[in-house]
Amino acid sequence: MRGAMIYAPGDIRFETLDDPEILNPTDAIIRTAVTCVCGSDLWPYRGLEQADEPHPMGHEYVGFVEEVGSEVTSVKQGQFVIGSFATSDNTCANCLNGFQSSCLHREFMTTCQADRIRIPNAQGTLVATEHVPGKELWPSLLAVSDVMGTGWWAADAAEVKPGSTAVVVGDGAVGLCAVIAAREMGAERIIAMSRHASRQKLAREFGATDIVAERGEEGVERIRELTGGIGADSVLECVGTNEAMQQALHSARPGGNVGFVGVPHDVGVDGQELFFSHVGLRGGPAPVRRYLPDLVGRVLTGAIEPGRVFDLTLPLDEVAEGYRAMDERRAIKTLLKP
Amino acid sequence: MRGAMIYAPGDIRFETLDDPEILNPTDAIIRTAVTCVCGSDLWPYRGLEQADEPHPMGHEYVGFVEEVGSEVTSVKQGQFVIGSFATSDNTCANCLNGFQSSCLHREFMTTCQADRIRIPNAQGTLVATEHVPGKELWPSLLAVSDVMGTGWWAADAAEVKPGSTAVVVGDGAVGLCAVIAAREMGAERIIAMSRHASRQKLAREFGATDIVAERGEEGVERIRELTGGIGADSVLECVGTNEAMQQALHSARPGGNVGFVGVPHDVGVDGQELFFSHVGLRGGPAPVRRYLPDLVGRVLTGAIEPGRVFDLTLPLDEVAEGYRAMDERRAIKTLLKP
Repeated sequence: MRGAMIYAPGDIRFETLDDPEILNPTDAIIRTAVTCVCGSDLWPYRGLEQADEPHPMGHEYVGFVEEVGSEVTSVKQGQFVIGSFATSDNTCANCLNGFQSSCLHREFMTTCQADRIRIPNAQGTLVATEHVPGKELWPSLLAVSDVMGTGWWAADAAEVKPGSTAVVVGDGAVGLCAVIAAREMGAERIIAMSRHASRQKLAREFGATDIVAERGEEGVERIRELTGGIGADSVLECVGTNEAMQQALHSARPGGNVGFVGVPHDVGVDGQELFFSHVGLRGGPAPVRRYLPDLVGRVLTGAIEPGRVFDLTLPLDEVAEGYRAMDERRAIKTLLKP
Repeated sequence: MRGAMIYAPGDIRFETLDDPEILNPTDAIIRTAVTCVCGSDLWPYRGLEQADEPHPMGHEYVGFVEEVGSEVTSVKQGQFVIGSFATSDNTCANCLNGFQSSCLHREFMTTCQADRIRIPNAQGTLVATEHVPGKELWPSLLAVSDVMGTGWWAADAAEVKPGSTAVVVGDGAVGLCAVIAAREMGAERIIAMSRHASRQKLAREFGATDIVAERGEEGVERIRELTGGIGADSVLECVGTNEAMQQALHSARPGGNVGFVGVPHDVGVDGQELFFSHVGLRGGPAPVRRYLPDLVGRVLTGAIEPGRVFDLTLPLDEVAEGYRAMDERRAIKTLLKP
């Protein structure tokens, strides 16, 4: 098979690798339909996360089942399947509580920018569609496996309710999907924090009612002006920096909620400040598996089109250019076709 | 009038002071029925909170209305009233959202260890009983104005649900009231963290099903053993130290909730750790006013007896001894009678 490897910051290579094999009876092997580059892939690409040796990349995928282990009965050869960046058995206590991304047998996917992928915990992780969906739906189904699932989780963790006001911090693919989620959950007012014209446009098309270009405490001040001086009911933090987290915390009203889904890098929360803010805080890797059946359904019926976050499509073997385009902000998100 | 003043750590004096007066048309003056010493009063008493000059003490009270300002119509002279340590107009946006302790006109009470008290925002703060309750109920009604209201908020913020498992960190008066709250909200298993025999006993009488004496990571380990290895659904942090907060965060299961109500002193939360824990976190000064009608009702019908946390009763003029007894852990909480 062929797939992407990272050798050093900025050094992505597309190489011939060993074919994946069934290692455990709970595994499946899929042939990739489409895959992509994630905003979080840029952390190691930019040298902000250390790696000791070359390793494969990618954790988003949809594909066709090629082979299943002896304990996998929920999907079968030839089916089109959607999974999650975090695998789960969907039977442990944490899965049953709805937090499949904290599954006791969780394995994070790390080899998906490739034409073949081994899926651990396949029984609990993969969801098959009834029929093979049209190719025009593949990008949106791919988005569900991570960015759309993560945007949904941001809105869920921030407890977006019908009629409420939601602020989305971050205009990357996750932030844009979070706008979709807030709209689907009935937020009346959705304020997207963005300073890029093309992203502002997409945010509006996804349901944002207001755009705020200011950042940091200036951005917080604008949110207060827009919310009668008290702040927003829900704030969806989709970046992962400390600046974004503080901005999110300060933008929520007393009793409001912050859902944070950007993997935190050097983020600290002051206990006394959080206390007197009355803000509720919850985050983590999205329990995509919990949302999969619902979100796949919304894509298949055309209710949501998260695949529109892909504004660059490349052949899989040009994956390195996909990283470059996102790093240089020439693209929001790169779709890769094997 | 006469009331308590703090001059320096460990130096509480009971003195003759100026009588309180109606300063604003929204004020009321009450004659204190009973008042008490709070665990949080021990922070300045122990020199852990700085004060530049002598000031009055006390923020818990029930009493009889003596005088009301021209804009106060909800209570009248002679009525028995219960309030909150945080006053609120009960009409602003934060109050209407149920976070009266973040009222835009909030004033914290600070002069209640006295025989007369001025209550700002009286209209929105005070709740009168239909009749003057029997004296045997005064301690429990007094508890509602702070520790019982705060324990209730801890359980509410930690989202205690029927059939769930709740852990209470802290065996002071608030922690013990949090046990009552968890029981009233239907928790099936209530684990009280306590190493003091008398407090363990009261916790059990209030509804604790298990006692864990270990602290810190050892305590966390015990909670994991008692919860099938994953942690508790809800953890009620009723201390305010960083050790207690970390213990609380580590005791909750993925997707569980920590409600923190001890005023944080040097508490920090690591963003990445919170992220991967999937734990929800909410705290703050308790919105007692939201709960007052319900909690007063539970006291009057005998459903709850939070006044049992008072294990020392002194005349108000012996307030200094009341502090000493709590500081030396000879008493859980001191009731003061004018």
